[in-house]
Amino acid sequence: MAGPQDIAERLRALRAALRDSGLHAYVALSSDPHLSEYLPERWQGRQWLSGFDGSAGTLVVTDGFAGLWTDSRYWEQADNALANTGIATMRAGAPDVPGPAQWLAGQLPQGARVNIDGDVLSLQAQRQWHDALSKSGIELVHDRDALDGIWASRPAPPSRPVFEHLPPHACRTRSENLAALRAAMREHGAGWHLLSSLDDIAWLFNLRGGDVSYNPVFLSYALIGHAEARLYLAPEKISASLRRALAADGIRVEPYEAIAGALAGLAEDQVLLVDPARTTVGLLRAAERAGKVEALNPTQLLKSRKNAAEIDNVRAAMEQDGAALCEFFAWFEAAQGAERITELTIDEKITAARGRRRGFVSPSFGTIAAYAANGAMPHYHATEDAHAVIEGDGLLLIDSGGQYLNGTTDITRVVPVGRVSAEQKRDYTAVLKGMIALSQAVFPEGLAAPLLDAIARAPIWRSGAEYGHGTGHGVGYFMNVHEGPQSIAYRATVTPHSAMLPGMITSNEPGLYRPGKWGIRIENLVLATPACTTEFGSFLRFETLTLCPIDTRCVDAGMLSADERDWLNRYHEHVRHRLEPLVDGPAREWLLLRTQAI
Amino acid sequence: MAGPQDIAERLRALRAALRDSGLHAYVALSSDPHLSEYLPERWQGRQWLSGFDGSAGTLVVTDGFAGLWTDSRYWEQADNALANTGIATMRAGAPDVPGPAQWLAGQLPQGARVNIDGDVLSLQAQRQWHDALSKSGIELVHDRDALDGIWASRPAPPSRPVFEHLPPHACRTRSENLAALRAAMREHGAGWHLLSSLDDIAWLFNLRGGDVSYNPVFLSYALIGHAEARLYLAPEKISASLRRALAADGIRVEPYEAIAGALAGLAEDQVLLVDPARTTVGLLRAAERAGKVEALNPTQLLKSRKNAAEIDNVRAAMEQDGAALCEFFAWFEAAQGAERITELTIDEKITAARGRRRGFVSPSFGTIAAYAANGAMPHYHATEDAHAVIEGDGLLLIDSGGQYLNGTTDITRVVPVGRVSAEQKRDYTAVLKGMIALSQAVFPEGLAAPLLDAIARAPIWRSGAEYGHGTGHGVGYFMNVHEGPQSIAYRATVTPHSAMLPGMITSNEPGLYRPGKWGIRIENLVLATPACTTEFGSFLRFETLTLCPIDTRCVDAGMLSADERDWLNRYHEHVRHRLEPLVDGPAREWLLLRTQAI
Repeated sequence: MAGPQDIAERLRALRAALRDSGLHAYVALSSDPHLSEYLPERWQGRQWLSGFDGSAGTLVVTDGFAGLWTDSRYWEQADNALANTGIATMRAGAPDVPGPAQWLAGQLPQGARVNIDGDVLSLQAQRQWHDALSKSGIELVHDRDALDGIWASRPAPPSRPVFEHLPPHACRTRSENLAALRAAMREHGAGWHLLSSLDDIAWLFNLRGGDVSYNPVFLSYALIGHAEARLYLAPEKISASLRRALAADGIRVEPYEAIAGALAGLAEDQVLLVDPARTTVGLLRAAERAGKVEALNPTQLLKSRKNAAEIDNVRAAMEQDGAALCEFFAWFEAAQGAERITELTIDEKITAARGRRRGFVSPSFGTIAAYAANGAMPHYHATEDAHAVIEGDGLLLIDSGGQYLNGTTDITRVVPVGRVSAEQKRDYTAVLKGMIALSQAVFPEGLAAPLLDAIARAPIWRSGAEYGHGTGHGVGYFMNVHEGPQSIAYRATVTPHSAMLPGMITSNEPGLYRPGKWGIRIENLVLATPACTTEFGSFLRFETLTLCPIDTRCVDAGMLSADERDWLNRYHEHVRHRLEPLVDGPAREWLLLRTQAI
Repeated sequence: MAGPQDIAERLRALRAALRDSGLHAYVALSSDPHLSEYLPERWQGRQWLSGFDGSAGTLVVTDGFAGLWTDSRYWEQADNALANTGIATMRAGAPDVPGPAQWLAGQLPQGARVNIDGDVLSLQAQRQWHDALSKSGIELVHDRDALDGIWASRPAPPSRPVFEHLPPHACRTRSENLAALRAAMREHGAGWHLLSSLDDIAWLFNLRGGDVSYNPVFLSYALIGHAEARLYLAPEKISASLRRALAADGIRVEPYEAIAGALAGLAEDQVLLVDPARTTVGLLRAAERAGKVEALNPTQLLKSRKNAAEIDNVRAAMEQDGAALCEFFAWFEAAQGAERITELTIDEKITAARGRRRGFVSPSFGTIAAYAANGAMPHYHATEDAHAVIEGDGLLLIDSGGQYLNGTTDITRVVPVGRVSAEQKRDYTAVLKGMIALSQAVFPEGLAAPLLDAIARAPIWRSGAEYGHGTGHGVGYFMNVHEGPQSIAYRATVTPHSAMLPGMITSNEPGLYRPGKWGIRIENLVLATPACTTEFGSFLRFETLTLCPIDTRCVDAGMLSADERDWLNRYHEHVRHRLEPLVDGPAREWLLLRTQAI
């Protein structure tokens, strides 16, 4: 870990490089050439420069100032990490704190030049930066990276092998995927389509990798024409036999770096479909000559709608995941008082329980095990240096998930340790009511998903509370645990791609957080599925896929309507029925105990 | 009423006028110079030309074609009205039916010229028409009206007297209103503000009129500066004493037509605030020289938030309105079987009952009394030629309201005639559950109102049904029964002006319509009011203002949760308590009978 003096030295070197190039500011984003959620170390320049390793943050360095903008989840962490570095924490989202672009526009003189590495800057973000800066006569320079000369020990890109996602786990053929994509390209009048987003590429070709944490993807680009498809990746990642299998489907493998030349080779009369939110300006510079049409990557929508075979597979993965959780919770309840348990132990034990299950590949994200007041930080992560011991009275929040060959899981449960207070029960039950309300919702097919959010929030609002995160994100199929296009979040903008459609798997995870006290979130994954077709049109409902008891010791039963109580009891009966064949011994006993009707 | 031959003659004359002026198409909107909801006859050119008198429709006439675009509410009515006229009904909103602008862009040759009267075309609409037509090289001509020379018997503008809205009914002074408006103008950096929208003008000056049906407004413009305010209207509308009262508040009265000259007199360095949705291009042509800033009329937001005195007055108006309804319903139940009742009788009797009440001025919109299958048409209006007799078994939907000096009411109730079927009860109860859910909602202050819609719709969606109208519109204070900016309608675009704020009065009116069978809508007006302030911020709830029993004979009590049943019984207890002092005899007996707990 770099100390304050290392950071100071790096900033000095950066400032010297800026001066040498006639640049007045450097902006380090949390981004990579594929605009991924999880960044390979090679693209953690913001972390290297600042020492702050939270997942979200933008570092701005001028000659006289250095500041890191990060959202409320990370304010405390940033204050600690940045102490004595000379870098200020900028509380993004707080009143009167301008965004980094607005701040620069207000501070720099006309004619100033701001450098952002175009290779990690989306076309959409570039437009926003340009709009904000150009109003003040400031130039955005994105054809270079001032960090290039000074980050001597910059890590190489990861190079884990690529493997094929095969039947029965893969439920669509590459040819089907390509045909569906090409049909969408035709609708847009495009002869070519450029893909930079790793989950889109992995999905399209039925390939998986291990280049970034948690998401089974690999560094690559794809360029799809109507008669050919090309996959750009480091040659050593792919075996000769896999290369032949791809060739048999009309897919040519090319070196990762060759994408730029291929784009440069597209002529004026060729139309390239690009997604401005998922393609960098650096890459698009190469495609200068080609005509362009902008749209959401069609693969986003195609992969969001799981087919019947995928859904069957996910149901089986949910059984394995639920059985692992029974084993974990049985251990946890027995071990309390008998051995020392910390938040870190929870992560180890839960991952080990999943690891014994068929098809398990890896966690689908870093486990959040947050005890008592730690639970009030929705994105808390325990570390070796700072973690709680599970003791005394408190609520334990566990948000975890697995990548299985046959599906991706994501589940949050809250369990009591010691005594539960009436106020905790009220909060827990309000969240449960919201989760049940959304679980039981029926709505017109194609309704914009953000509009469903109020249904989950109504019971929580009624108790005078609110939570700062969305209620539901799309979930992949042995793929990223966060995917689009649907989002059950009322702050999300309604667009033509917001529609909730059959086959989409989405999380249902309302929450309630009392800073300094406790945090509650109850999360299941739900499948959008036809409910009925009437004279009023087609309606969808949610089928709950996640199989794991919801702890009833925290429920204030008097707050539940008969309908809500019925839902909970039916859910537990269903969980018991599905999981009982998969567990025995203490895990089975725990399952029977915790699925009792209330 | 004009016959098909009159219509044919008018179209012939119009086409000749178009040819003489080198124009290729004429578009008649449903609009007037003030962009009002209800049009004085003078601006009912579309009705005069086509014979179709529905409230919404756009007539397009080219040399070889005439078509009237109207939405699904009016398709049947348009088919009947347009039979044998040579004018086609164009089913706006149906799949594959282009909008009128898109249709013209596809049909007319490049270089064609389309005439729309700029004096009734908002700046916002003009931009949309221009965008659609210019892509096809078609010119929009809006500096004239081809109808001018051919509509010989065109009615004169209305000229009803203007009167002052006085304390205790008026609860703000003109000076306060002007000060609040000028503060908003200052925020926009505007020295002048042009108002064309009649409700904004009437509100600003505490004046009312009778120029259009139902809305207590008068034809006028206003031009507000920081040091002076001018009101433009026909001089005969206003008494000398009122003119003096206005002068005392710094308001100068000018002739209606003088607005153009005043706008033309604004110099280049003067900044005029205009609302592009509420100002016509015809009028703005006069303000050519002035600088402009565009924004929602600040008066929209100012008048949407009723103050404490206004709210107290509305509560009193609701008592009068509820008492009138008790008298009406008592008569209705007694008269069934004893006398012949039609949908028209309902309108007469309900208006007469309101007419006996203190402060009543006029209905706030045309009463909808719709029996049985007629109720399934949400905007049905009975006419002398076509109306139902109330007999046999059926549901009667009555949507009505009053303008009182101390408030505006709008209420819908459904009552049973004869026997009620189980299916009718299911539908009625689903709507009631939706209405109760929104009545009980608590939500963050400033939440975008469209996001609340799903709370009301969830119970209706759950029964596999949907309704095509919004759930809530703003309601004025002795002012238009439809006002903005808030709208509880999920199809409404979320904008910075969508926020639900304390003091807003909004309708709560979910519905369910079975074409050919029955229609159900239950509507109360609700006030947004503080619920609580917690560590999570400030929350609002709705106070139900409307006082009138909700017929429990149509309720399937088994479908109500204990919570919903409690709400209904508490509401009826409250209605009984508030109205009992105001009614006697059969009306009191009816009130006691229909507010019994279930």
